[in-house]
Amino acid sequence: MEEMINHLKTQGFVFQGSEIYGGLANSWDYGPLGAEIKTKLKAEWWNYFVKKNPMNIGLDSSIILNSKVWKASGHIDGFNDPLIDCKKCGSRWRADKLIEEFDETVISGAMTNLEMEDYIKEHQIKCSKCGETNFTNIRKFALMFKTNQGVLEDESSAVFLRPETAQGIFINFKNSQRSLRKKLPFGIGQIGKSFRNEITPGNFIFRTREFEQMELEFFYNPNDGENWFEYWMEKVETFLTEKIQIDKKNYRIRKHENDELAHYSNQTSDIEFKFPFGWGELWGIADRGNFDLNAHQSSSGQDLTYLDPLSNQKILANVIEPSVGVERMMLAIMWQAYTVEQLEANNSRVVMKLPYSLVPYQVAIMPLQKQLIEPAKQLFEKLLVNFDATYDETGNVGKRYRRQDAIGTPFVITYDFDSLDDNKVTLRNRDSMLQERIEISQIEEYLKQKLKQKN
Amino acid sequence: MEEMINHLKTQGFVFQGSEIYGGLANSWDYGPLGAEIKTKLKAEWWNYFVKKNPMNIGLDSSIILNSKVWKASGHIDGFNDPLIDCKKCGSRWRADKLIEEFDETVISGAMTNLEMEDYIKEHQIKCSKCGETNFTNIRKFALMFKTNQGVLEDESSAVFLRPETAQGIFINFKNSQRSLRKKLPFGIGQIGKSFRNEITPGNFIFRTREFEQMELEFFYNPNDGENWFEYWMEKVETFLTEKIQIDKKNYRIRKHENDELAHYSNQTSDIEFKFPFGWGELWGIADRGNFDLNAHQSSSGQDLTYLDPLSNQKILANVIEPSVGVERMMLAIMWQAYTVEQLEANNSRVVMKLPYSLVPYQVAIMPLQKQLIEPAKQLFEKLLVNFDATYDETGNVGKRYRRQDAIGTPFVITYDFDSLDDNKVTLRNRDSMLQERIEISQIEEYLKQKLKQKN
Ligand SMILES: [Zn+2]
Ligand SMILES: [Zn+2]
Repeated sequence: MEEMINHLKTQGFVFQGSEIYGGLANSWDYGPLGAEIKTKLKAEWWNYFVKKNPMNIGLDSSIILNSKVWKASGHIDGFNDPLIDCKKCGSRWRADKLIEEFDETVISGAMTNLEMEDYIKEHQIKCSKCGETNFTNIRKFALMFKTNQGVLEDESSAVFLRPETAQGIFINFKNSQRSLRKKLPFGIGQIGKSFRNEITPGNFIFRTREFEQMELEFFYNPNDGENWFEYWMEKVETFLTEKIQIDKKNYRIRKHENDELAHYSNQTSDIEFKFPFGWGELWGIADRGNFDLNAHQSSSGQDLTYLDPLSNQKILANVIEPSVGVERMMLAIMWQAYTVEQLEANNSRVVMKLPYSLVPYQVAIMPLQKQLIEPAKQLFEKLLVNFDATYDETGNVGKRYRRQDAIGTPFVITYDFDSLDDNKVTLRNRDSMLQERIEISQIEEYLKQKLKQKN
Repeated sequence: MEEMINHLKTQGFVFQGSEIYGGLANSWDYGPLGAEIKTKLKAEWWNYFVKKNPMNIGLDSSIILNSKVWKASGHIDGFNDPLIDCKKCGSRWRADKLIEEFDETVISGAMTNLEMEDYIKEHQIKCSKCGETNFTNIRKFALMFKTNQGVLEDESSAVFLRPETAQGIFINFKNSQRSLRKKLPFGIGQIGKSFRNEITPGNFIFRTREFEQMELEFFYNPNDGENWFEYWMEKVETFLTEKIQIDKKNYRIRKHENDELAHYSNQTSDIEFKFPFGWGELWGIADRGNFDLNAHQSSSGQDLTYLDPLSNQKILANVIEPSVGVERMMLAIMWQAYTVEQLEANNSRVVMKLPYSLVPYQVAIMPLQKQLIEPAKQLFEKLLVNFDATYDETGNVGKRYRRQDAIGTPFVITYDFDSLDDNKVTLRNRDSMLQERIEISQIEEYLKQKLKQKN
């Protein structure tokens, strides 16, 4: 992974956050190329899960909500990490992580704090830093970032940065349903930043304190016989394999066991991806029943029911939530794309084999020599109208090919001296590295056709 | 404006933030329709200012940066509001606003706190609430939201939510320039959320504490003779008039006077829009010289210069910043679009005359009667593949036309009994309200052509 991270930094995909000031722990900025992939990825998700699904609509709610939302959702009371300190060396640990590192078959998420304390004592789990078994009791560490809004700095003005986008959807369920006269089943999708003050972020962009989510809350009538969970599992897999071309061998589905499920959840499955550091959660699909709407209905006193036109009864909708993090998805995409290929004569090349749908640039145009800059630039500006195009005039052709490989550009067009006479250019393919001569007048149609296909 | 806000709420464009919990002061959520306009607006900006401009590239930096960034940029010391309290009634005011309301020809932004205190005393400015002239001294109220990152809650862990996206660009200037081997001039564009703990937000979505910015920082060689300020003024105007069809009569350009300019700025112009409450700033275009890069170079000790290939000298780039808020732009777009039209027979309709490029739905499909639901739905799902389509089967046709007018859908297709025989449907135009019969097989081509045009 270090090798890839280095590649991503050098090429302009991902930079260390606040790097010129020595960085900020586990913070990453997306450079020009990463920003473009992210933009395209979000547009693909929005298109597939919101716009092109006839049942679904979108939403864009605030990051800072009324704190009563987090009280109702259980985040103020229950969204915290169980922290313990080593009394000997003073280092700080997450009790649940210590236990799972000690015995990976234990599901510490299902244990109470007391049970975890007992387990650690009983099994004499050691501090990974100093080796002693001498821990404080567990204390709860709130994961929501807190700030103050308005002039006063006291509890009355305390607000939180949302730790998930989902609650913004639940509190807007009724307004959205009513204004668009939606009938069950229907989904509300949202993309946006969330924040969690994680004690142990890490693994590059896999877990960061500031992150972006793409969440769909799909509301359905509990009396409706359809298996909507399966429906959304299939949609998620189709998105992965068809829209962003994640290889089937790089992910697996893990169904949560009953003792692992949240108390309100009927079923949950994770799509796990084979990250450089091992299998990790990429996409969670959970049937949350009516837990959320019920909680907000009780707390707000507002009627969040839906009048079932068949039974003519008021019901609370159930919800299925496919939820995925943009950064995690970016890591999966870039890790799968990152390829070091051995070429002949002890040469090698780094190629980002990104799907065509997500490449920063679809085509690069380069002049073979300085004298050809003018017509090459003209061609570049012409192609820029309908394609994501870039232009490169520095270094020899071989070097420039490597550069475009390194950033995943599927097609490179070289304008050479013959082009002036025969109106043809050399078009080189990223993956096959094959070159062909092609009429300049045919390029647009050629690219259009090729880019429609999978690479 | 109240009338429009009501319309936007009912139709699903904008909801009050956290409404079911009694709201959160000056917080607004974007409903399904508003979210879609926002998504399209951001894509238009990104396309025009980042992707299709051959000089520019994009970026996506974090909201939470190393606090040294805000020290260097001057925000920690200088980004605050001058607050005073009325000693009699306890109400709180911004001194600069009090002065400008008292005499709108005074530019209070250029006064020191002492000067403002003196001015208020000298002119005996009254408290707008109780009428007394008895104020405290001014105290500085920091506009950045502060929170703590990590386990400790002290100054060492204090971080801020960015009050602007621009600084994220400056600190990534060198990494971006180097990794993409950019030569001056070039610009870096970014879209993202910013936060300001404003004391007096208001005017609906015009000024909110949480908002989204679209900022371009365009770096140029100070020795280069081009008038880049003029170049970007023209680009901004072209974007407004061509891409999102803001009417020339609804905006004006206001050039800042010398005594109004920030000390580092060579020139600044605002594009002001005729909002429902009067002229207000929509888009600021500022030549900031090398103030920002210089500040970060001094503070970080990193070399942020650029090696000018002509003179072979290291120079600090100047920068021009066209900066616009997404919400303000949304307000301008929706206000211009919001139209109440008198029709014959004492009827009226509300039409959102949105530009085609920003409509939530391009086309609506409706069956004339219940028996026609099946073929109408089939047509809807077919059109959904290539268009932003919606479907409506409830209420009489006239009502459904009004509904689509109210949300700005340019074309409505009605599937009727004749359609079964003649394979034609009725296509109705939002603006002209004219209807025509059209072959079902011709619809896609017809819509494609029409939607390319301006409405
Ligand atoms: Zn220890
Ligand atoms: Zn008063």
